[in-house]
Amino acid sequence: MLSASVDIRVRYEETDKMGVVYHSNYFIWFEVARVALLDELGCPYSELEKDGFFLPVLKCEASFKLPAVFDDRLKITVRIEKLPVARIEASYVVKRGDILLATGSTQHAFVSVEGRVVRPPDSFLEIAKQYFSD
Amino acid sequence: MLSASVDIRVRYEETDKMGVVYHSNYFIWFEVARVALLDELGCPYSELEKDGFFLPVLKCEASFKLPAVFDDRLKITVRIEKLPVARIEASYVVKRGDILLATGSTQHAFVSVEGRVVRPPDSFLEIAKQYFSD
Amino acid sequence: MLSASVDIRVRYEETDKMGVVYHSNYFIWFEVARVALLDELGCPYSELEKDGFFLPVLKCEASFKLPAVFDDRLKITVRIEKLPVARIEASYVVKRGDILLATGSTQHAFVSVEGRVVRPPDSFLEIAKQYFSD
Amino acid sequence: MLSASVDIRVRYEETDKMGVVYHSNYFIWFEVARVALLDELGCPYSELEKDGFFLPVLKCEASFKLPAVFDDRLKITVRIEKLPVARIEASYVVKRGDILLATGSTQHAFVSVEGRVVRPPDSFLEIAKQYFSD
Repeated sequence: MLSASVDIRVRYEETDKMGVVYHSNYFIWFEVARVALLDELGCPYSELEKDGFFLPVLKCEASFKLPAVFDDRLKITVRIEKLPVARIEASYVVKRGDILLATGSTQHAFVSVEGRVVRPPDSFLEIAKQYFSD
Repeated sequence: MLSASVDIRVRYEETDKMGVVYHSNYFIWFEVARVALLDELGCPYSELEKDGFFLPVLKCEASFKLPAVFDDRLKITVRIEKLPVARIEASYVVKRGDILLATGSTQHAFVSVEGRVVRPPDSFLEIAKQYFSD
Repeated sequence: MLSASVDIRVRYEETDKMGVVYHSNYFIWFEVARVALLDELGCPYSELEKDGFFLPVLKCEASFKLPAVFDDRLKITVRIEKLPVARIEASYVVKRGDILLATGSTQHAFVSVEGRVVRPPDSFLEIAKQYFSD
Repeated sequence: MLSASVDIRVRYEETDKMGVVYHSNYFIWFEVARVALLDELGCPYSELEKDGFFLPVLKCEASFKLPAVFDDRLKITVRIEKLPVARIEASYVVKRGDILLATGSTQHAFVSVEGRVVRPPDSFLEIAKQYFSD
C-alpha cells in the first residue's frame, strides 16, 4: 500500500456564505495529497508530465460528515491500495485532529500527450511494485 | 421528475495546464444548474436561505468521459428523480452539443441555521409534489 | 473605443464566509468580459491562441465600493480606450442594475508561444483600428 | 513595520491552459500571507471575526514580472509600513528563491458585522503600535 499525508490550512477563499468550506475544494486538497504521495515515491508529478505522462481524473467522489471552517488545520491522507496498472485508484481521508470530516476517492489513468491511455512509465512501476506485497 | 438546464461557457480560469477544465469545476457548474432548477420551481435558493433553510452537499461524485476545454459552450442538465423528503438526490449530465462529456450526482439535506437536519419547508414540498406522480 | 458587456450571475462558490463575493473572483469576471469583447471584434481569444498569440495579464487592479452577493445579476463592462499596440489596457465596471459595485483595470501584452512579447497579429490590428478615430 | 512570510507550493488547480498560474490566485496567496502576519502579531484573523471585526478588501492590485508554474515553491512576503488606523495598507512580494515573480498591494478597513467602517479593536492597536516607531 502507498500512503501520504499533507497538512492543509483552510484559506478564506475556500469558504462560502454558509460559513464552511465549499465542497469542490476538497478535490483540490486531494490533488495536493496525491502530489505529495508521488513525491515520497520519488516520482514527482511534475517529472511525470515532463516525461509525457499525464494523470487526469476519470472519476471522483466525496462524502462530507462534518464541515471544515476557515483557518482549520486539516490533515489529508491519501492511500493507494492496489498496484496501479491500467487504473490508479486513490482514497482520501480529511481529518481535523482526530475528527473525521470527509472521505473521498479518485480514479486516474496514465495518458500520453496525445490523450491516449498508456501503460504507466516503467520507472514508476518499478518503484510502485515495492510497496505492494503479493 | 424535476429537471432544468443551464448554458455554461468555459472560463479561462477553469482550465489547467493540461489544457482542459480542472475536474473540481464541474461541481460548481452542478451548483449553477441546481440553482436554476430551484428558480424554475419557484423556490429560489436565495429565498430558502432567507427563510433559514440551507442545502449543504452531503455527497458528490462525477465521471469524466471527454474533457471540456476553454470557450466550450456546455449544457448542464440536472434531474431530481424522487420526491425529496429527508434527502435530495440530484443527477447531472454535461454535454457539448450532442457529445456527453461528464455525468455526476449530489446528495443534499435541508439543514437549519443551527446545522440540524430538518424537514424541507412546506412551501417547497407543496410545489415539488406536483412534479412527482405516484 | 472598444467596449463590451456581459451578464454574470453570482455563483455560490464565489461567496465567502463574510457572505459576499471573495474579491479575487472579480478578475475572473473581467476575463469573461474581455473574451466577449474579442468575440464582438471578430477575433475570439481561442482563435488568437490557436494562431500562437497569448494575452497574459501583466498588471491588474480593482476597487470595491459595495459588495456583490450570491445570486446577484451583474453587468461587467470592459473598455479599451487606446488602440492597442505594445500593450493593451482595459478598464472594467461592475454594476448591479444602476448601482456601481466595483471598478478595475488590467494590462496585457501579446506574447508568442515561447513567451516573447510580440506585435499584435495584423488581423487583430486591422480590425481594432476601425474602432479608434485619430 | 510589520512583516511576515509564508511558503506556498503551487497547486495544479491554480494553473491555466497557458501552463502558468492564473493571475487571480496571487490575491488568494496574499490573503494567506495576511493571515500569517495577524497570527504572528497575536491577533489571529479568525479571532478578530469572532469579536465582530471584519477586514474586507477595498482595493487590490498586482504586477506580474515572471510566471509561477505548477509545483513551484514560492515565498509570499507581506509588509505593513504604516500604523493601521482607518485603513490598513499591505504590500506583497512573491519570490521563487531569489527571483522576483510578482508584487502587489491590498487596502482594507475594519468593518463591523453590520458593515460599518469602525476603529480597529483596541487590543489590535495596542499590539500593532509596538511595531511602528515614530
